[in-house]
Amino acid sequence: MTVPLRPKYRLFVDAPLAAGVAVPLTQGQAHYLGTVMRAKAGEAVAVFNGRDGEWRAEVAELARKGGTLAVAESLRPQAAEPDLWLLFAPLKKDATDMVVEKATELGAARLMPVMTDNTNASRINTERARANAVEAAEQCERLTVPEVAEAAPLARVLAEWDPARPLLVCDETGGGEPLAAAAARLAGATLGLLIGPEGGFSQSELDLLRRTSFVLPVGLGPRVLRAETAALAALAVLQAVAGDWRSGGPAFR
Amino acid sequence: MTVPLRPKYRLFVDAPLAAGVAVPLTQGQAHYLGTVMRAKAGEAVAVFNGRDGEWRAEVAELARKGGTLAVAESLRPQAAEPDLWLLFAPLKKDATDMVVEKATELGAARLMPVMTDNTNASRINTERARANAVEAAEQCERLTVPEVAEAAPLARVLAEWDPARPLLVCDETGGGEPLAAAAARLAGATLGLLIGPEGGFSQSELDLLRRTSFVLPVGLGPRVLRAETAALAALAVLQAVAGDWRSGGPAFR
Repeated sequence: MTVPLRPKYRLFVDAPLAAGVAVPLTQGQAHYLGTVMRAKAGEAVAVFNGRDGEWRAEVAELARKGGTLAVAESLRPQAAEPDLWLLFAPLKKDATDMVVEKATELGAARLMPVMTDNTNASRINTERARANAVEAAEQCERLTVPEVAEAAPLARVLAEWDPARPLLVCDETGGGEPLAAAAARLAGATLGLLIGPEGGFSQSELDLLRRTSFVLPVGLGPRVLRAETAALAALAVLQAVAGDWRSGGPAFR
Repeated sequence: MTVPLRPKYRLFVDAPLAAGVAVPLTQGQAHYLGTVMRAKAGEAVAVFNGRDGEWRAEVAELARKGGTLAVAESLRPQAAEPDLWLLFAPLKKDATDMVVEKATELGAARLMPVMTDNTNASRINTERARANAVEAAEQCERLTVPEVAEAAPLARVLAEWDPARPLLVCDETGGGEPLAAAAARLAGATLGLLIGPEGGFSQSELDLLRRTSFVLPVGLGPRVLRAETAALAALAVLQAVAGDWRSGGPAFR
């Protein structure tokens, strides 16, 4: 099997993708290609929009405030991805950035900031998180960008949850099932993963979680993990044991 | 079973630990307890030295340049830990800091910086890495601090490797066994894990790895992970499937 040479640049775009269509560049994309990377007309750019697979395009026009790509040929069809949602209490800015970037690399389909009684940060910059998710998706060869939901209180998220989707809750009070054992039972399922705040869940949140039918408490081993470590470690284990790491290596390289 | 109240402070010390012994504080520890945390004489401090378990001590003397703790009672005996070594090519400073901190939380026993043909950073600050490992071990309730080895060239590390210890190599060229499947076969074993540099292994390194008997190429799924993400994700999967996450939650909390 021959693998086509990978273009040097990769961009997430909004426009529909098909052979022969023109894709407009945003001002930011034009700046990145023209000013930062000094790309020239005719150079190849891989593009994806989360719906139509990945395509090889060429720089057609490049100006200071915009430009156009001409889509040439298909590189990969759109493929199904694990429907894994990450719920996390917003952290300090650097830690939130890290969670968004790494969760994108680890294939989370949806990032849902939830406000808890002990949440460290009172707000989250959703636009910043979305931009970070796009950049991470471009770099890690994903065909989608995870959706970043608006922050919502934990109680409301639980009230609106589809009970058919198990919600694994990392339980630092002990007693949860080891994560890999729970994951093995749930291989291939649509799942949610909830990581509590640095300060832990409050007693009333623990009570609420315990009486919620779709909640499955899981344990992440004997050490006390920082919230961002717990989020990334648990996502990795879920992808490795129950998700899309089960069928081998990268689609490209 | 009653769990003793956890002291607010936790320090890694060098001195032997037993009931009644005095433990000298370094200048840094005295500064942390006295100036940063404003601890008073008589306050409880958990101490561990990697050999004698964890003990409850009390602040006996606290001055600007040093002080003494008086060890009172045992909190936890020393316990066996997975003998999991992480080999990684040094990264930019922030990424290396992250790998050291998170690998400590994830229970790596030994951190071995290896120099490869495409290693991003030409050197690593071993003293900084050791200090970061101590701080992370204090925070995550570990009973040990991972050893940080001096950086060494990959070829030498392989030449001196004990062939009885499988070395899992994250193989971004594809074709490796899915990590969780390899881990399941190796549950409980002493293991090494090698993460290549951002630029990938060179062709001669790939050839060397392929003809090395104890090397086991493993795949980390379809996306292209940054080096630090790969290190942390793979450590989490190994602990969850083959290491000390298999028996449940934290020893304390």
